[in-house]
Amino acid sequence: MSQTRFDATALWADLEAVRERAPLVHSITNLVVMNFNANALLAIGASPVMAHAHEEVRDMVRIAQALVLNIGTLEPGWVRAMQMALQAALARGIPVVLDPVGAGATPYRNTALKELIATGAPSVVRGNASEIMSVAGLAATTRGVDSAASSSQAVDAAGALARKLGAVVCVSGADDHVVDASGRWATLSNGHPWMTRVTGVGCSASALVGAFAAVQPDAWRATVAAMACLGVVGEMAVERTQAAGAGVGRLQIELLDGLQLLDRESFAARLRMVVHA
Amino acid sequence: MSQTRFDATALWADLEAVRERAPLVHSITNLVVMNFNANALLAIGASPVMAHAHEEVRDMVRIAQALVLNIGTLEPGWVRAMQMALQAALARGIPVVLDPVGAGATPYRNTALKELIATGAPSVVRGNASEIMSVAGLAATTRGVDSAASSSQAVDAAGALARKLGAVVCVSGADDHVVDASGRWATLSNGHPWMTRVTGVGCSASALVGAFAAVQPDAWRATVAAMACLGVVGEMAVERTQAAGAGVGRLQIELLDGLQLLDRESFAARLRMVVHA
Amino acid sequence: MSQTRFDATALWADLEAVRERAPLVHSITNLVVMNFNANALLAIGASPVMAHAHEEVRDMVRIAQALVLNIGTLEPGWVRAMQMALQAALARGIPVVLDPVGAGATPYRNTALKELIATGAPSVVRGNASEIMSVAGLAATTRGVDSAASSSQAVDAAGALARKLGAVVCVSGADDHVVDASGRWATLSNGHPWMTRVTGVGCSASALVGAFAAVQPDAWRATVAAMACLGVVGEMAVERTQAAGAGVGRLQIELLDGLQLLDRESFAARLRMVVHA
Repeated sequence: MSQTRFDATALWADLEAVRERAPLVHSITNLVVMNFNANALLAIGASPVMAHAHEEVRDMVRIAQALVLNIGTLEPGWVRAMQMALQAALARGIPVVLDPVGAGATPYRNTALKELIATGAPSVVRGNASEIMSVAGLAATTRGVDSAASSSQAVDAAGALARKLGAVVCVSGADDHVVDASGRWATLSNGHPWMTRVTGVGCSASALVGAFAAVQPDAWRATVAAMACLGVVGEMAVERTQAAGAGVGRLQIELLDGLQLLDRESFAARLRMVVHA
Repeated sequence: MSQTRFDATALWADLEAVRERAPLVHSITNLVVMNFNANALLAIGASPVMAHAHEEVRDMVRIAQALVLNIGTLEPGWVRAMQMALQAALARGIPVVLDPVGAGATPYRNTALKELIATGAPSVVRGNASEIMSVAGLAATTRGVDSAASSSQAVDAAGALARKLGAVVCVSGADDHVVDASGRWATLSNGHPWMTRVTGVGCSASALVGAFAAVQPDAWRATVAAMACLGVVGEMAVERTQAAGAGVGRLQIELLDGLQLLDRESFAARLRMVVHA
Repeated sequence: MSQTRFDATALWADLEAVRERAPLVHSITNLVVMNFNANALLAIGASPVMAHAHEEVRDMVRIAQALVLNIGTLEPGWVRAMQMALQAALARGIPVVLDPVGAGATPYRNTALKELIATGAPSVVRGNASEIMSVAGLAATTRGVDSAASSSQAVDAAGALARKLGAVVCVSGADDHVVDASGRWATLSNGHPWMTRVTGVGCSASALVGAFAAVQPDAWRATVAAMACLGVVGEMAVERTQAAGAGVGRLQIELLDGLQLLDRESFAARLRMVVHA
């Protein structure tokens, strides 16, 4: 919808808004990445809260500026908590990011995702190619899921999913593609393959999308900004890590440092973004 | 009660006792900080154990020298486990530290805290200003909770809570205040604001209080010693981090290193403590 | 059974197989170490997945190449998930590693371990001396557990447990002993005491055994290879940490870096292994 031309300067303004406004991001996420995700949110300047008890999950949504749902270590009580939080978030009109970790890996994950989507459409869905293709298949029900997903196929699936849900969909990988229901499509080409060798980097991308969507009402632009920041931070972090002769342990630390210390000049100089027609 | 004059030398002796005796600290804590808390306890020289199953929680308390309860990601089964552990700890006479994470944020947290306090009084309650004011309000029931908490108001609330529970209460922030039911009051002014940008530093403070209380029977002095160590370690860790041009990712690591490597001379030279009349 | 003579070259080939084949290792593990274990598996070149819902745990086993069970923060629902996963893994014939964290600490842990072992024998059991002696006592039922365990007593208990279960048993400590039911016995003498001051290093050893057993069908050799790699990585990581004047915080990072960057020459030069008669 937005006709605003945007570039590194516009996206940088979103990062500055996160730093200035420190939005409260409520995450119901998986047990493996909770600590790293909380630290990623703190590093970017947001304020994380994690709560999943049915007795309080709606109340916590009421004080949050964004909600992030991640099914990585799902079980029925947690899925129900996610549904309750999703309903409360939609009622309040705050953005909701869904990370469909492992979509397609087991029938239960697919069932849980169907239930979540049936509860209400998230503002943003972010996953890797196979996850997005799997969710698109679930949402469309008339199409199968191609397990040998090519990048362009994932973009098509992302577009179909975006239209189906009226949501922004982000497929991350060597290139990150961000599409919306109106046909907007941006491709980001920063990052480094080592980022996949630190657990929770993808999940943290979703958390960061939540932080940006809390301050930038255009969820597509917020998603592009978050992915752009993480991509630039990631490639700089790998460079620093490799220059030190270090490895993926050190990379965790460099990623967090980079989220905090990213500067406007580096961001503008390194951003590799194409906004399609 | 204790009329012992104390200073850096006395507090240092408590740290040495932790290192020598390696107390077993049983934590029932939140899912976000478990790893960092366990590493903080190991770094200071204590021995962490985490167990929450109703089937064993009392048995684990029986072999521990301190119990730490943290409600960060509470749910009913975990609150019940905390109650069982608290009862067992009180029966055995080992110190119990309560960290009321997010007190006041939701009605459920307040209900859970009321239930915990009704089960029995912890030895120490440690939280930030708004958490302590919230718990003081719950414990006193006749006073409201001032959400625009000033530091001095939090100290008053801490004092009231200490008298109500017969416990030590620690309000942490730019200054850390430690009070008890008899009117003892110490203020510590070490630390750095970046410490709030690593998840679990406050929770680790509570864990460390547990380790010190396991070896120092005066819970007020143990709390002062733990907060003093963490404050000095924190400001040194931030200095090392900033000198390296690094950020809050690196700070996590420097905090753990500092807990292990803190030396007597640095501690004595840097401690900023006032013991009030 | 295998009469293959083996040495650093053979063990190195197993590490290379992990790096090349990136086996999917399904872990049902404790809440404290999940993040570190996932990162350890990623660093060595394996692919971690963690899932415990009863609704999907069997399905996840079906796509995994190894299963690792760790009872550190057990509760009944998780023990049941472990039983379901264990049955599915045995049915498929993939290796199962059991880490009996805290065996002997509470009656409930012993009961849970009995139930797990009654469900089916794991391929490998890895623990410290007191854990292995405790499990050996449970498995043998006619012998008590010596709580003042000497290293040689633990080896005897490990041998008895290995024969009872028809499994490989690894006792880790200053020396790591790896025995099997046929009487094979290797002793590894790498490592450093600081490794016990990072939470989850032992648990990660079990996870790494799972990764090696996924690519090396001789579970005894796979266990020796995994423990050999971690021991060499650990002592090199401590050396780098101490050379930097750093501590156990930094050691976490150096361990992960080392798992990724270990080279054949260092491994061969440093390996201290004795294969007994």
